[in-house]
Amino acid sequence: MRRVPWRDKLLFAPGPLTTSPAVKAAMLRDLGARDDEFLDIVADVKNRLLTLAGVDRDSYAAVLVQGCGSMGVEAAIGCAVPRAGGKLLVAVNGAYGRRMVDMAEVLGIPVDTVAYPENVVVVPDDIGERLAADKTITHVAMVHCETTTGIFNPIGEMGKIVAERGRVFMVDAMSSFGATEIRIREWGIRWLVSSANKCLEGVPGFCFVIVAKGELAAGAGNARSLCLDLRAQDEDMRKTGQFRYTPPTHAILAFHQALLELEAEGGTRARTERYKRNCRMLRRGMAALGFREFLASGGHGWIITSFRCPEHGKFSFAAFSAILRDGGFVIYPGKVGGADLFRVGSIGRIDAADVAGLIDAMRRALAEMGVTMPPEEAPE
Amino acid sequence: MRRVPWRDKLLFAPGPLTTSPAVKAAMLRDLGARDDEFLDIVADVKNRLLTLAGVDRDSYAAVLVQGCGSMGVEAAIGCAVPRAGGKLLVAVNGAYGRRMVDMAEVLGIPVDTVAYPENVVVVPDDIGERLAADKTITHVAMVHCETTTGIFNPIGEMGKIVAERGRVFMVDAMSSFGATEIRIREWGIRWLVSSANKCLEGVPGFCFVIVAKGELAAGAGNARSLCLDLRAQDEDMRKTGQFRYTPPTHAILAFHQALLELEAEGGTRARTERYKRNCRMLRRGMAALGFREFLASGGHGWIITSFRCPEHGKFSFAAFSAILRDGGFVIYPGKVGGADLFRVGSIGRIDAADVAGLIDAMRRALAEMGVTMPPEEAPE
Repeated sequence: MRRVPWRDKLLFAPGPLTTSPAVKAAMLRDLGARDDEFLDIVADVKNRLLTLAGVDRDSYAAVLVQGCGSMGVEAAIGCAVPRAGGKLLVAVNGAYGRRMVDMAEVLGIPVDTVAYPENVVVVPDDIGERLAADKTITHVAMVHCETTTGIFNPIGEMGKIVAERGRVFMVDAMSSFGATEIRIREWGIRWLVSSANKCLEGVPGFCFVIVAKGELAAGAGNARSLCLDLRAQDEDMRKTGQFRYTPPTHAILAFHQALLELEAEGGTRARTERYKRNCRMLRRGMAALGFREFLASGGHGWIITSFRCPEHGKFSFAAFSAILRDGGFVIYPGKVGGADLFRVGSIGRIDAADVAGLIDAMRRALAEMGVTMPPEEAPE
Repeated sequence: MRRVPWRDKLLFAPGPLTTSPAVKAAMLRDLGARDDEFLDIVADVKNRLLTLAGVDRDSYAAVLVQGCGSMGVEAAIGCAVPRAGGKLLVAVNGAYGRRMVDMAEVLGIPVDTVAYPENVVVVPDDIGERLAADKTITHVAMVHCETTTGIFNPIGEMGKIVAERGRVFMVDAMSSFGATEIRIREWGIRWLVSSANKCLEGVPGFCFVIVAKGELAAGAGNARSLCLDLRAQDEDMRKTGQFRYTPPTHAILAFHQALLELEAEGGTRARTERYKRNCRMLRRGMAALGFREFLASGGHGWIITSFRCPEHGKFSFAAFSAILRDGGFVIYPGKVGGADLFRVGSIGRIDAADVAGLIDAMRRALAEMGVTMPPEEAPE
């Protein structure tokens, strides 16, 4: 296949994603960081995030953080867990859960884990038992959609258990926020972190934390970093309407446009439906081609799907993905040690026609490589 | 005056700045974070930064850091100063020097300061004396161009004194890199931090650290943050060619274009000349209008200039800057406590004609406000 020269490759990826032309075009401006127009946009972005989160402005704050999504997670952990007497429990079934453990360790925060294989959903009762056994744990963190595999963890059930046991619940919703309903208040989520360049379909450059104001106030003095001090970030913006330090003005303009487009699409519900449709088409198409899914025992979301590399003498992921890339489609290698996987995303500004194009390109790539496989049973 | 409706306001600011149309247009693409084309661009960006820094690839590394410039400074301090037995001395004559002290304190790093008023240049011999008196100091940090006022500090002379005394020298060159020659090796600079959205004329979204490889290796285990671990960031990129965590792909594409434009302009030397010309025109024009400079006793650079608000009954900075803003020009309030100042930048994609436009707009704004002042003596 030849690379289509007149447009960028479509990104079936965990992010950065394909964004709309208007989102990118919103970056064709240089606004000053103190410009009234820019500050109005920042305020609107924060209000829209709180509305999307389904929380009221009196109880929760939206804090934007310059940098990549992990900076938001590290900021949240560093600001939430007290310096004296704090202990974090992390439920781990993938690389992003493990990363939270690494963050706590570097920050000198006592941390414990409940670990699962990458293809097993976190079991809330396990966490409940651990909380009953270890009264020193003050905070519980987990990843909603583990981008490692695409597995969805039950944050709703977990949140209730954590709240019943009187601990603080923190969620990394990087890959899920905007693509599924998250009942923050009802599920007892006190800290939630997500990013501009995932299901809200902005460009990378910053992330955001939706946090209960009481937690932010209680966390005074916790921050292990000046730049990643969420309370200072929030307070400065409340006082001045401005960012403490230089904001990524262009990425924020793009994000604002992305939020307008989310509303025009019909909100989280409509976006969820599009992503689910993309994912259903993808999984059926891949099954028909003979690919097997990694999460055979369940836990499928609709953000990203992991497939096993076929045990076929003529198949190599490097060759397969290179042919697809030249055809204008980007898919991702796996992120699970010891398993030969690859990943295909369903998110970003892509729709059913794009997924059909990808499946067709895969069919031709397999033919070019001389790989034939019997079809797998179609997923539900 | 009426706002010109057909283009954005020109930013005579400390940054974000006015950038070229082509720099912004470079962001009209969505490239995957693992895309070969993107990774080639990242590699070229790093090579160009090392070339601009005048250092060889065997001795120094360029490490890109997601987020705002202060994150790069905090990362450098956190990675440079040892956990055991490290102590930082900061020469302070403005808000950005003070911010380095704040960073060290939050990170739990022992820190001492040599402080000056905002309109006084740092005296290297003072630092030399302090180093002679306190053998526990291991690292010395200072800001090259203090954006607080625009004052230039003598990093060359300072670096030699720090090296003679066997300590490690760190420079915040946020506002100066690309706009003046910095002899990193000759001046004994081991860590230098700058940003995409200053004199290299990219958009905000990341910063970079030019660091002696020996320092990076010696600093293993120092990092006080997972995300701001420069050694891990550098090692991962060397191993995989990729960013550890999601990069701001669009801002990096813009920055690459900005570096190509810097080369086309004639490199740092030509850019320095343009900025000096802008600044000279600005200072002469402002003097003719009757404005007095804050740095009357010297230390002027050509990045940003601080002016005293006239003690004239009809002058208010709020009204003055609002009239200019409506005319399409952005200037900045002061950042020095106790002094009534404002600041005007000379950097970014602006030239002599733009400065002439600004001065003319100021003349009309003063007339509109009914402010008449005798001219000040023109600066050299």
